[in-house]
Amino acid sequence: MCADKLEKLTKTQTIDLRAKLIGPSCKIFFSDDPIKIVRARGQYMYDEKGQRYLDCINNVAHVGHCHPDVVSAGALQMETLNTNSRFLHDNLVLYAQRLQATLPAQLSVFYFVNSGSEANDLALRLARQYSGSQDIVTLDNAYHGHVTSLIEISPYKLHHMPHVPLNPFVHVAPSPDVYRGRYRRDHPDPAKAYADEVRDVIKRVQTQGGKIAAFIAESLQSCGGQVIPPAGYFQQVAEHVHKAGGLFIADEVQVGFGRVGTHFWAFQLQGDDFVPDIVTMGKPIGNGHPMSCVVTSKEVAEAFASSGNEYFNTFGGNPVSCAIGLAVLDVIAKEDLQGQALRVGGYLISLLEKQKSKHPLIGDIRGRGLFVGVELVRDRSKLTPATAEAQEVIYWLKEERVLMSADGPHRNVLKFKPPLCFGTDDADFVVDKMDAVLTEIEAAIGLNAANVLNGENDVN
Amino acid sequence: MCADKLEKLTKTQTIDLRAKLIGPSCKIFFSDDPIKIVRARGQYMYDEKGQRYLDCINNVAHVGHCHPDVVSAGALQMETLNTNSRFLHDNLVLYAQRLQATLPAQLSVFYFVNSGSEANDLALRLARQYSGSQDIVTLDNAYHGHVTSLIEISPYKLHHMPHVPLNPFVHVAPSPDVYRGRYRRDHPDPAKAYADEVRDVIKRVQTQGGKIAAFIAESLQSCGGQVIPPAGYFQQVAEHVHKAGGLFIADEVQVGFGRVGTHFWAFQLQGDDFVPDIVTMGKPIGNGHPMSCVVTSKEVAEAFASSGNEYFNTFGGNPVSCAIGLAVLDVIAKEDLQGQALRVGGYLISLLEKQKSKHPLIGDIRGRGLFVGVELVRDRSKLTPATAEAQEVIYWLKEERVLMSADGPHRNVLKFKPPLCFGTDDADFVVDKMDAVLTEIEAAIGLNAANVLNGENDVN
Repeated sequence: MCADKLEKLTKTQTIDLRAKLIGPSCKIFFSDDPIKIVRARGQYMYDEKGQRYLDCINNVAHVGHCHPDVVSAGALQMETLNTNSRFLHDNLVLYAQRLQATLPAQLSVFYFVNSGSEANDLALRLARQYSGSQDIVTLDNAYHGHVTSLIEISPYKLHHMPHVPLNPFVHVAPSPDVYRGRYRRDHPDPAKAYADEVRDVIKRVQTQGGKIAAFIAESLQSCGGQVIPPAGYFQQVAEHVHKAGGLFIADEVQVGFGRVGTHFWAFQLQGDDFVPDIVTMGKPIGNGHPMSCVVTSKEVAEAFASSGNEYFNTFGGNPVSCAIGLAVLDVIAKEDLQGQALRVGGYLISLLEKQKSKHPLIGDIRGRGLFVGVELVRDRSKLTPATAEAQEVIYWLKEERVLMSADGPHRNVLKFKPPLCFGTDDADFVVDKMDAVLTEIEAAIGLNAANVLNGENDVN
Repeated sequence: MCADKLEKLTKTQTIDLRAKLIGPSCKIFFSDDPIKIVRARGQYMYDEKGQRYLDCINNVAHVGHCHPDVVSAGALQMETLNTNSRFLHDNLVLYAQRLQATLPAQLSVFYFVNSGSEANDLALRLARQYSGSQDIVTLDNAYHGHVTSLIEISPYKLHHMPHVPLNPFVHVAPSPDVYRGRYRRDHPDPAKAYADEVRDVIKRVQTQGGKIAAFIAESLQSCGGQVIPPAGYFQQVAEHVHKAGGLFIADEVQVGFGRVGTHFWAFQLQGDDFVPDIVTMGKPIGNGHPMSCVVTSKEVAEAFASSGNEYFNTFGGNPVSCAIGLAVLDVIAKEDLQGQALRVGGYLISLLEKQKSKHPLIGDIRGRGLFVGVELVRDRSKLTPATAEAQEVIYWLKEERVLMSADGPHRNVLKFKPPLCFGTDDADFVVDKMDAVLTEIEAAIGLNAANVLNGENDVN
């Protein structure tokens, strides 16, 4: 289809109408000169002029934008039946069965909902009902969703709302960030040290008469700065949380479905001996279709049901969503996208390592599969966040038609989380462009390679 | 497509897998002998044997199950582009513009989300940010969604959770039910009387040091028992709420988009002088596609934005959802479905009135367009809810291949909210069946037409 047919308004008209009609809290990328995308395919997006952008950030388009298998599965089911789960339908149960096959056996009871926010909210409801308690331990810089109950447990958002008092049932433990956090790579046992922090938070809650319902964490923190918790951390946290009567909720909304390469789920990076009590899924699950999922144990599910409460979700688990979910799983397997994430992610990290030895602005490179963070700092000893520079990189890359974003509490972590069809040539292309812009910025601010030797140089 | 191709498992297999894999809180219709639906079209659903059911309840399939215009709009956009609203896209703004044209001019700023629950939760966040207050007034028997913040304001759910303490920020006013409520059709001014109850609740909150953020109500209460508030009630409530610094949220998730026949939005039944501060939309908006919307005034939207908070919803307002939303609006207009709701709804009510004079079990018939409730009572003076009889009707109708449900606090209100393509022949068919089953039940329990004269006989 030719691009001009895909545009019904001029870009200026679109911008004007958006300013008039869309909530001003809904931010756009590159607000001073936003991009109008009219079509996309694989790891590429195309603007109204037909210009191609390399997409390094849309982890929702997990198996590639507009994957034909996913589109046709959705279209076929849409024309056949789309209704709620109060009727029996094969897609619902077959999809649950297929998801179950990717998970530890204990995680066997599914709830299908429409968004990561709905999934995490339901996870909290399950945990609170199961435990009979209210208190939640969350990690600093965490983001778990946009509904009221999740804003409350999202320091990533709360840091920008200093006027809003923290909900008394919410307790924040330090982010297990071994680069910038309280315990770093030079610590003898950061997993234990960070888990002990959670234990201490739980103790404080108990001292004040509270009771823990759950600990919740992304298996790898995304908005929080592409943080990779040290292996063994989750096991020890789970032990503390279980001892306190609470549940461990692993939020896989950003990172699940093979992205980390070695495993299908990011929590599995912690070791085979770790099984969360609840796992939430979202974004990539339907390659852009609004759907998500919560899985838990029979025990937790039965406790929720025993409250006598019915749970009904109008759109959740409808035959179209399940058909799309099944197609996504098929494509991941058929195209070995988990393997591709491992191979291309490894290649990308090796390219970035080389850049690190050349560019003092690169403080840290961390990642698993096609989930990679590049943290920019002005000084490798002090870890001074290079926030403005990260913005400059993003804007420069935009001009080079590469879509990248910066995140983390200091907005200085460049985030790679592309569609999994992202290839080694795409990695070459973007790293080349990064090399050029970093060289330019470093020259402008007078940073030179000598500084590299000042600080910590290890790679995770 | 032949039905047997649509079944991948036997019905028994589907039931067994569902019992094993799907949360036991997710209830199924007719749990002792559930229906397996494999395809649907218009107002008809078909089971695995090819048996046709007349659908009187799926208000989500607003313009008819699997409407080809909606399906093709969705499929075309799915194969072209499906991404988030951080990029400019024409569908987003054109859709907002089209929705705006159906609304009072003040309601001009849109937020697109994925479900009625996400919409109502965002409405609460908007109101709380705008007002700087926390307290919410909700109606008895109301249901506003399944996320934590909405369960809290849903007495329909809370009545089944007596062990859960009411959130101290939530205050319940009586449902403006002129049949069974505190003020009935014989009251000289039920609109004022019920609005005064809200005023009194607000006063109590203020006396206790609280501050009102919002009053929320469905424009017509659905789960609460197909309740039609008396005209003028919303205006007076809005006056009290505004005076207290709060906002009026009209929940149109169940009842919007032309269903009420005379108007596009059910809040408009109250009179042209009434404009809510926030309107939430859902279910019918995408004919089954997971999408929903919040609209408010510039003033409220700006107050929300001024908090510095970004609002991002991964799937909300994506080009596929907006293409589907636009197609739904097109079909409503092209097929004059609002007009059809008015005509067929009027015809249905006239048929039901005749049944009322014949069947003492029918206590009340109330409705607007194709949103109709038939309240069954054992005694027209005492209004004793005929709960078991309503269940019997539902099960009998199922055997006759008519899908109907019973709701309300006593589960004794038969609910009509069919796809708007529901025709007069469909109305004839279902009312005929109802006549037969009511005759049978009344004979069995010894209710006879003489009782009809005992009680109030007026029709709303």
